[in-house]
Amino acid sequence: MTYCVAMRLASGMVFLADSRTNAGVDHIATFRKLHRFCQPGERMLALMGSGNLATTQSVLSLLRTRLGNDAPNLFNQDSMFHIAELIGATVREVINRDGGNEQSAVDFGCKFIIGGQIKGQDMELLLVYPEGNFIQATTDTPYFQIGEIKYGKPIIDRVITYNTSLEHAMKCALLSMDSTIRSNISVGMPLDLLAYRRDSFTEGEYHDIGESHVGYQHLREAWAHGLRQTLNNLGELEF
Amino acid sequence: MTYCVAMRLASGMVFLADSRTNAGVDHIATFRKLHRFCQPGERMLALMGSGNLATTQSVLSLLRTRLGNDAPNLFNQDSMFHIAELIGATVREVINRDGGNEQSAVDFGCKFIIGGQIKGQDMELLLVYPEGNFIQATTDTPYFQIGEIKYGKPIIDRVITYNTSLEHAMKCALLSMDSTIRSNISVGMPLDLLAYRRDSFTEGEYHDIGESHVGYQHLREAWAHGLRQTLNNLGELEF
Repeated sequence: MTYCVAMRLASGMVFLADSRTNAGVDHIATFRKLHRFCQPGERMLALMGSGNLATTQSVLSLLRTRLGNDAPNLFNQDSMFHIAELIGATVREVINRDGGNEQSAVDFGCKFIIGGQIKGQDMELLLVYPEGNFIQATTDTPYFQIGEIKYGKPIIDRVITYNTSLEHAMKCALLSMDSTIRSNISVGMPLDLLAYRRDSFTEGEYHDIGESHVGYQHLREAWAHGLRQTLNNLGELEF
Repeated sequence: MTYCVAMRLASGMVFLADSRTNAGVDHIATFRKLHRFCQPGERMLALMGSGNLATTQSVLSLLRTRLGNDAPNLFNQDSMFHIAELIGATVREVINRDGGNEQSAVDFGCKFIIGGQIKGQDMELLLVYPEGNFIQATTDTPYFQIGEIKYGKPIIDRVITYNTSLEHAMKCALLSMDSTIRSNISVGMPLDLLAYRRDSFTEGEYHDIGESHVGYQHLREAWAHGLRQTLNNLGELEF
């Protein structure tokens, strides 16, 4: 499984992905799921995928290979909308290629979150479905999740609004991931964290967070401590 | 959908159930899912069901009807193990009766949590599967959930151990329910909360918690406030 979350906020965007893939419980491996495509000063794109690993890797390879071509690619599309269309078309291309054998019970599906900003335009965050269609984050619904999304959703629902600061949102994303990792063994370390500041058109602030990452450990411990304190201080239940 | 959680702790047991059932998004109704079977001074049983409503209601009706018979019933079985066997057999009986038509795509399955205590024996908590087999809670894994379990699992995983107090566990169960209700519209109020103290052999402390329940509102507000405070006080992320 996988857990990826991305937020589009007033001050910028946050992307967080785990790196565990598994087929059953005994084919476990580490694959990075957060990929950046940046033309400094021009455009920054971050792409995260969940679902069938063969499909997501093929889609990524095709997107990367075509960057140098004249054909439609991530660097020559003129809007985030057209970039999402391109990713959707590439997903369909791979699934049509691999999924033709109807006797197979394999699910070739995958989902992608694509976020970024093109010079002169607003930041956008989109979720591309296995069918290749997509939806767009808004100020009302400023975040998307893919993969094993349920364990980490409550904290985001309680905390994140469009006006949440980037620093706050990074912590919230990491705590959402921590809750997921604690409750589901198919989501695991290391993590890829990316914060992009609005109108910066850089690769953004990227962090590779492994098991021994001191800042992440401190955050988890402080959160666990704070939760216990909060629970202890709730007072008597009034019936 | 449904969310039910039960805990077997050193000092007693906690049972909590929502009351929403739905088929799709437009057949929404309120049905109670927590049922008590008590012989004061002799035995206390609490049963919660999730899954196909026709199946769970039939199982309950059969269990209730047979209480007055000489046939095996919830009051004449001599252990919690045999009570779980009886519930499992009744689940199989109903599913075999209704599920015979193989052309139907309906899922007739259901799950039950049964907990309680019989005079002279320890409290037990068991989870009965649609196939009629079952597992038993232990001091290492002192809780079971059925229905829409994921949203409310992280807080329980963080807080509940076998030695958690009953009062604390009731709050934790309610907060787990609150997280679930916020993130999933198929789980809804009112709630049935039951706390049973070890060796009391009474019906236990029962609370019907509706939308306007002041104690529940205060708990939710205090928790939301505490979470925000904790997040605000986490300090800078160290990278």
